[in-house]
Amino acid sequence: MTRQQLVECIFQQQSYLCVGLDPDLDRFPPSVLETDDPIFTFNKAIIDATKEYCVAYKLNLAFYEAHGLSGWQSLQRTVEYLPDTHFKIADAKRGDIGNTSKKYAQAFFEAMPFDAITVAPYMGADSVEPFLAFDDKWVIILALTSNEGSQDFQFMSEGGEQLHERVLRTAQSWGTTENLMYVVGATHPEQFKNIRQIAPDHFLLVPGVGAQGGDLKAISEYGMNQDVGLLVNSSRGIIYAGGKVDDFAEKAGHAAQSLQEEMQGYLSAFLK
Amino acid sequence: MTRQQLVECIFQQQSYLCVGLDPDLDRFPPSVLETDDPIFTFNKAIIDATKEYCVAYKLNLAFYEAHGLSGWQSLQRTVEYLPDTHFKIADAKRGDIGNTSKKYAQAFFEAMPFDAITVAPYMGADSVEPFLAFDDKWVIILALTSNEGSQDFQFMSEGGEQLHERVLRTAQSWGTTENLMYVVGATHPEQFKNIRQIAPDHFLLVPGVGAQGGDLKAISEYGMNQDVGLLVNSSRGIIYAGGKVDDFAEKAGHAAQSLQEEMQGYLSAFLK
Repeated sequence: MTRQQLVECIFQQQSYLCVGLDPDLDRFPPSVLETDDPIFTFNKAIIDATKEYCVAYKLNLAFYEAHGLSGWQSLQRTVEYLPDTHFKIADAKRGDIGNTSKKYAQAFFEAMPFDAITVAPYMGADSVEPFLAFDDKWVIILALTSNEGSQDFQFMSEGGEQLHERVLRTAQSWGTTENLMYVVGATHPEQFKNIRQIAPDHFLLVPGVGAQGGDLKAISEYGMNQDVGLLVNSSRGIIYAGGKVDDFAEKAGHAAQSLQEEMQGYLSAFLK
Repeated sequence: MTRQQLVECIFQQQSYLCVGLDPDLDRFPPSVLETDDPIFTFNKAIIDATKEYCVAYKLNLAFYEAHGLSGWQSLQRTVEYLPDTHFKIADAKRGDIGNTSKKYAQAFFEAMPFDAITVAPYMGADSVEPFLAFDDKWVIILALTSNEGSQDFQFMSEGGEQLHERVLRTAQSWGTTENLMYVVGATHPEQFKNIRQIAPDHFLLVPGVGAQGGDLKAISEYGMNQDVGLLVNSSRGIIYAGGKVDDFAEKAGHAAQSLQEEMQGYLSAFLK
């Protein structure tokens, strides 16, 4: 998907919501667990109920891999079921030496129809570049993550520049605003102004709203650029909104709708 | 596998060689490509031919995932075929927020019988700790990688401490010498003295010998500790030693044997 297509989709849906599909059998209602492929059954119902309110889906690979072969099968079915209109993110946090990253790129961009993959920056340029060689495919580099452990290394500072700032700056020479985004956690709303000074035009994928407590308003106010430039993800806050009930998908739809409506307001208020 | 078992295995085999199974169809001989499961056929032959000379196998996940479902199937067959006597590493470079890392740990330590998984440190403590909750299982944290991109961030310095040094120091509070190793690339032989000052007792997994040009002698001289403390990996240099020939496995065996013999010499020369 191109940047232009993504931006058009955002304006059409009046939403920059990304729904995170982190399927956890322990949180599924019994009616789902009884089906042949519970993960796909669950995801399909969630997708049908939320697609009207979001522009992207993020599949957290760990939740599929945890089930071995059958999980990989559910992953494949899910990504193939996702509507063409929506941006498809493999939340894989991959990244390895060049010849290996190339194989990962084939896995997610050729063997499966993902639009984007999340990549950890620790190994530097040659671990990221193979992902950038595919037309209309995106790399989403971890800059400032939403978890507590983000404090351990990401704020390390040299010459007044912190590690996550250096990642934001350095990676701009690897790709463009048309094929490179950054992960910036919603749990650091105070950082968005600064991040927008370093990377004013790039899209940011923002996890951590909902279960992790991020503040959607602050993120939108300080993170939005002229093309919106935000994909805000909620996983658990949407897909488990109703608990283990038969109408879990309807409840997820309501949760997604409520975020979409909030976003619609911010689109009028904060768009540059 | 416990540290004691690993150390005993090293002394018994007179080897600290890890063979990297990075199966690449483009480099397989035609006779292998004709089989039902070429990746498993290739790996099985390599394992049979090299197990006498090594103590560990490292499976590079990308090379399996690139083939989608069938690759995942070959991965599962391969890890189940590996001898119990050998240390089994999932070279996955995973790492995510806590609830996600827990799922990855289940994938590799429960759904599959790996002994260890490589993890990227960028996301900090809570991305690593879930892997450390499994008895006799290991986390191998990227400290200083073998690729060119290691220059981009890993030498960033604050207060006289470089990022990879901080990773080496900080991660010691997350695990012990019984469940935590570090990746240190063979392409930085000049760094091993310094790394051994920061982490004298931990095992190091050392990729980059062979195709990437690392110097086995220097690494052994400066990296060995009282328990050997090294697993030196070669992937392409062993498994593709013979090219696309029918006796590729025999050639791989010779390449592994030659490294083992070199290591046997260093074990007498450099063991502290």
